[in-house]
Amino acid sequence: MLDEKILNILKDRIGSYVSGEEMCESIGVSRTAIWKWIEKLRLEGYDIEASPHLGYRLKSIPDSLIPIEIKWKLRTKILGKEIISYKKVSSTNDVAYELAEKGMAEGTCILAEEQTKGKGRHGRKWVSPQNVGIYLSCILRPNISPNEIPKFTLLAAVAVARAVRELTALDAMIKWPNDVVVNNKKICGILTEMKGEQDRVSFIIIGIGVNVNTSMRDLPDTASSIKEELRRMGASNALSRVELVKKILETLEKYYYRMKKEGFRTIMEEWKNLTLMLGSRIKVILQNRTLEGQAHDIDSDGALVVRLDSGMLERVSSGDVVIIK
Amino acid sequence: MLDEKILNILKDRIGSYVSGEEMCESIGVSRTAIWKWIEKLRLEGYDIEASPHLGYRLKSIPDSLIPIEIKWKLRTKILGKEIISYKKVSSTNDVAYELAEKGMAEGTCILAEEQTKGKGRHGRKWVSPQNVGIYLSCILRPNISPNEIPKFTLLAAVAVARAVRELTALDAMIKWPNDVVVNNKKICGILTEMKGEQDRVSFIIIGIGVNVNTSMRDLPDTASSIKEELRRMGASNALSRVELVKKILETLEKYYYRMKKEGFRTIMEEWKNLTLMLGSRIKVILQNRTLEGQAHDIDSDGALVVRLDSGMLERVSSGDVVIIK
Repeated sequence: MLDEKILNILKDRIGSYVSGEEMCESIGVSRTAIWKWIEKLRLEGYDIEASPHLGYRLKSIPDSLIPIEIKWKLRTKILGKEIISYKKVSSTNDVAYELAEKGMAEGTCILAEEQTKGKGRHGRKWVSPQNVGIYLSCILRPNISPNEIPKFTLLAAVAVARAVRELTALDAMIKWPNDVVVNNKKICGILTEMKGEQDRVSFIIIGIGVNVNTSMRDLPDTASSIKEELRRMGASNALSRVELVKKILETLEKYYYRMKKEGFRTIMEEWKNLTLMLGSRIKVILQNRTLEGQAHDIDSDGALVVRLDSGMLERVSSGDVVIIK
Repeated sequence: MLDEKILNILKDRIGSYVSGEEMCESIGVSRTAIWKWIEKLRLEGYDIEASPHLGYRLKSIPDSLIPIEIKWKLRTKILGKEIISYKKVSSTNDVAYELAEKGMAEGTCILAEEQTKGKGRHGRKWVSPQNVGIYLSCILRPNISPNEIPKFTLLAAVAVARAVRELTALDAMIKWPNDVVVNNKKICGILTEMKGEQDRVSFIIIGIGVNVNTSMRDLPDTASSIKEELRRMGASNALSRVELVKKILETLEKYYYRMKKEGFRTIMEEWKNLTLMLGSRIKVILQNRTLEGQAHDIDSDGALVVRLDSGMLERVSSGDVVIIK
C-alpha cells in the first residue's frame, strides 16, 4: 500500500525532513501522488509538515488503533497479520465470531475505538467508551476440545499482565479466572468464546478489553484504568494504546506457541507467579450458592481449587471470586 | 391454521366421509373456503377423495416431514413446539445454529427432506438423499458448561436407540460416542455443536441423521438403513419417518428432563444397557495414534475408559472406535 510505504519512510526518520524528490524515487510515483497520500495520512491524524524546500516531516503519530500503526514493526508470525479496525462496533467479539464462521484465518484481529455493546462474561456489560480503551478480539483455531478453553483465558491473562509489566512500572496481577488487576482494581477483562463440536473446537475468540485512558467516572468501583494507576504512582507519561496492543499481540502469540510446544504446565506456572489469590482467603460466588475458603491451587485444566474450612478441597470451574482481607 | 383444523377433522375419522356441511359448521367457514384448503392439502400429498353427496374422505397421509404432520398428537412440552421444515437445505445443523444465534427458543426443531452439505463429526460428510432419511436438528439451551456437551451426545443416542426399539423389532444399539447401530451397521449419527463461553454454553444444537429408507447403494459399507435391516429380518412393513421423528422428539425430551432432574447418572445407566461395546476388545483411532484394549467403562463426563493390555486405564474423550471380533 502506498500510504504504508510513505509512512514507513517518514517514520524511519521521524522529526527530520525527507525531500519529495527522494520519496518519489524510492517509491516510484509522482510528486502529485505523494501529495495526495500525505493528505490522506493527515486526515487519519498524522501530523505531517510540508516545506516547499525541505520536503515532508512527520511530527507526531496518532494513538489510533488502525492497522497501519499496529502492524508497524509488529513482531508476530500470525497474530495481527490481518487486522480489521472499526471506529465503532457492537462488540469486537461478535464481529470476530461472525468472521470466524465465514472462515477468516487464525490470527485475524478485530479492533474498535468504541463498542456499543461491549460484553463481559455471562452476558455482562463491558464499559467501552470512545478512543480511550483497547477493545480487541483475536481469532484462534487451536486443535483442542471444548474443555480446554479455560486454559486460553488464563493464557490471555498472563499475556496481558506481562505486556502491561513490560511497558509500565505497574504490578499487574491476575485474579482468577479472567481479570487483570492493578492494586486490586480491574484494568482488563478477558472473554473467551467458541464454536465447537463435542470433542473439537472450530475456533475460539479471545476478547480482551483494557481500560487504558478510561475516565474513572465511566468505570465501576471495582475497576480502574492504566492511566489512573500510573497517575497514582506519580508517573507522568501516558501509555500508548498502540504500543500496548502490539505488546499484547506479541506476548499472546509467544505464550500460545509455548503452550502448543510445551503444554499448559508452563503457562500455569507463569500464571501462578502472577496471581495475587493463591493462599488468600476467598469467597466464590457460584450460580446458586457461595463458597468460602482458601484459594489453594489451579489444576491442570485451569480450574480453581478451594480448600474449605473442613479441610476438603473443592474444584470450581466457574464463578466470581472476592478476596477477603 | 385452517389447513390444520380441516386435517384434524379428517384424520380423526380417517377412511370415513365427513360431509362438507359438518366441516363448515365446526370450523365456521364457507364451503368454498373448505374446498380451497382441501386443494392445498392435496398438493402437499394428502390423498383426499371428494364425493358430491358424501363429503370428504382422507385416504392416505404422506410420509412428509412437515410441521403439520410432526405436531399431530406430539406428546412433548417444548421439543417441536416450533418446527421449521425445508425441502432442501445445506445442513439442518447450520440452519439451526444460525437461528439459535438469532435467539430462537429452546425446543425449536429444523427438519429437511434433503441436505446438500449434510455434516458428520470432524467435518465429515453425512449422506442425505431426498425423502428417505431424517435430517433433524434441535436447539437446546441447557445451563451447562462446555465440558458437559458429551453427555448430550450420549443422551441423544439413547433417545434414538429407544425410539427405534419402540417402533420396530430392531435391536438398536449404541456405539460410542455418537452412533446408533443395528447389526453393527450405522443407521444413525449424532452431531452436537455449540456456542459458548469458557464456563457456559449459550446454546447447543443436537443434529440427528437417520437412514430410514435410504438405499444401500447410497451408503458407505459400515452403514445400513432401517428399511434394509427390517427387510433382512423379514418384516414387511416400512417404518413411517413421521412416526420416528415424533418418537425421537418424545424420547429426547423425556431423557432431557430426566437428566435435568436426576443428573447424568440415570442416562449413563441407560446408555450402558444399550451399548454393544463395553467388555469388547476395541481399537480406538485417535488424532495421532491408535490405542488397543478393552472397552472398560464410560465415566461420569461421558468419556470412554479403555483398559490397555498393560492393565492401565486410559480415558478417551475423542476418537473413532473399531470393535475387534
